[in-house]
Amino acid sequence: MSQGAGCTSLIPISDLVRRLRERGAERVALQFPAGLARRAPGVAAALRDAGFDVIVSGDPCYGACDLALDALVHADVLVHFGHAPVEERPDVIYEPVRIDFDVTVLSRALPLLESRRVGLVTTVQHVHLVDAMAAYLGEHEIEAVAVPGDGRTPLRGQVLGCNFAAARATGADEILFVGTGVFHPTGVQLATRARVVALDPLTGEARSVDASRLVRRRAAVMAKAADATSFGIIVSTKSGQQRMDIARRLVALSDRAFLVAMREVSPAGMLDLGFACYVNTACPRLAYDDQIRFPVPVLAPPEFEILCGVRAWDDYAIDEYLSP
Amino acid sequence: MSQGAGCTSLIPISDLVRRLRERGAERVALQFPAGLARRAPGVAAALRDAGFDVIVSGDPCYGACDLALDALVHADVLVHFGHAPVEERPDVIYEPVRIDFDVTVLSRALPLLESRRVGLVTTVQHVHLVDAMAAYLGEHEIEAVAVPGDGRTPLRGQVLGCNFAAARATGADEILFVGTGVFHPTGVQLATRARVVALDPLTGEARSVDASRLVRRRAAVMAKAADATSFGIIVSTKSGQQRMDIARRLVALSDRAFLVAMREVSPAGMLDLGFACYVNTACPRLAYDDQIRFPVPVLAPPEFEILCGVRAWDDYAIDEYLSP
Repeated sequence: MSQGAGCTSLIPISDLVRRLRERGAERVALQFPAGLARRAPGVAAALRDAGFDVIVSGDPCYGACDLALDALVHADVLVHFGHAPVEERPDVIYEPVRIDFDVTVLSRALPLLESRRVGLVTTVQHVHLVDAMAAYLGEHEIEAVAVPGDGRTPLRGQVLGCNFAAARATGADEILFVGTGVFHPTGVQLATRARVVALDPLTGEARSVDASRLVRRRAAVMAKAADATSFGIIVSTKSGQQRMDIARRLVALSDRAFLVAMREVSPAGMLDLGFACYVNTACPRLAYDDQIRFPVPVLAPPEFEILCGVRAWDDYAIDEYLSP
Repeated sequence: MSQGAGCTSLIPISDLVRRLRERGAERVALQFPAGLARRAPGVAAALRDAGFDVIVSGDPCYGACDLALDALVHADVLVHFGHAPVEERPDVIYEPVRIDFDVTVLSRALPLLESRRVGLVTTVQHVHLVDAMAAYLGEHEIEAVAVPGDGRTPLRGQVLGCNFAAARATGADEILFVGTGVFHPTGVQLATRARVVALDPLTGEARSVDASRLVRRRAAVMAKAADATSFGIIVSTKSGQQRMDIARRLVALSDRAFLVAMREVSPAGMLDLGFACYVNTACPRLAYDDQIRFPVPVLAPPEFEILCGVRAWDDYAIDEYLSP
């Protein structure tokens, strides 16, 4: 398989068969994120040809925080494609995707960097290139600081959309994020208050990040939520998104707040239940990324704390799912 | 609450509080189908005022086959509104909805009935009126036969969209279905091969049922499925929709068939996985009702058996979820 700047072979079946046999697995469950799911029939056929009993999960999957434990009930091992672990489990094999690129693309970011010492973070697809990127920056007289995050982001330089611990741990005043999209670098800035430069290694586009637009947008959502007569405090039922401790703490802040258990946080479910506002303790990105899909305001936990008067506006923080 | 022809009080909170206290419950999970879900904030507030710790399920719910066991993890008892049990569980309280009507509306069906002995079936909302309906028919010299179905439809005259055992058990050549929609009476006809008259008690509309249109439509879907290069055999992960025995039997019929575990059977999930055709062992109605939403053919188990040559066309049968 090849894709864009070079996606290395996604699914080394012979290697996977070896690992499954080493574990003595006979029944195998397979889980793919949407972008890889079309490989399912082929991978399933190859594993069955190798003698395994196979079941494929057909539920949506957005991360390693969303393991197909329902399918694992019918199998000895779950093979989760596309993501690195956020928790190690003896019955789950993770097969992350690596996407290569030529690290000289970092030349595009050099004109934007102001410091000689820069924190370096990226997403899991590129995290195997951290040393090569640091070496390239070193050749250009920039000291790159790449360190592990917490238990959910244990790889050097690894950030998730819900976890910027590896950025914070650099202690740097300027951070280079290498990866696609605007969400991660915005989160890095809000989590660290550092200057952040974002480089998309596939397009070569580099830019300075300005998180204030997100904060202004969120302030507008919070203003709408201020009049709500009832709050549904959403708690996820997914394997790695259950933050019941936070949800219970939030419920206790308002006598108009109630716990709402949800698997997929959906606009239809919100409308049906009829709470005037929701607070999301599931995947932190949902509130920020998907407000446009939602029929009512959906707040992040720190935003609800501000609304309830137990957090100051100056302490506005992005919601992170940190390791317990 | 009042609705249409008279929905009796849906949620007798004081009675519910008494039953919860009798069980010693302290933590209560609430589950509503979409049509009742807007009652959630009010019911949750009333139960919290009565001293209970409350969590509301926000996942879609289409029947008592779809219990919110994820929410029950955080509670002592689950209160499931809107449906009668398909399985008894010690930690679930069912609060079905009763919808009353004046049984003289059956006069609208009399001109269409041809027999002096008629099987009588209805849906759970009206099943408390079975004796009154039978008495009305008796006054008009028609013997009404209303009998229990199987373990999933234990009430006299009760049918579900996936279970017509109470219709079959009447042994009648003509059956009167009282309820809304076309699916149930069509299923009754396919399951019994009897003459079927359907009466909508809310509109007063009566009509003779012709299931042949559904069968022709299904034949067209099966024709499209004949060329499929791969089949995903969907097995549900919901509490009362798991028919793994049937799914495994179907997988064994074709070397192009693979098990696919799904919670919500969704068009997006089907497209992502890329099987050319699916066979649905989850809620039987999905294949019949929702084909128009699906991107590829979705067969019922008996239809896949016909395609694989292990069932004759003359034995075309509607898929039912009968008690084990």
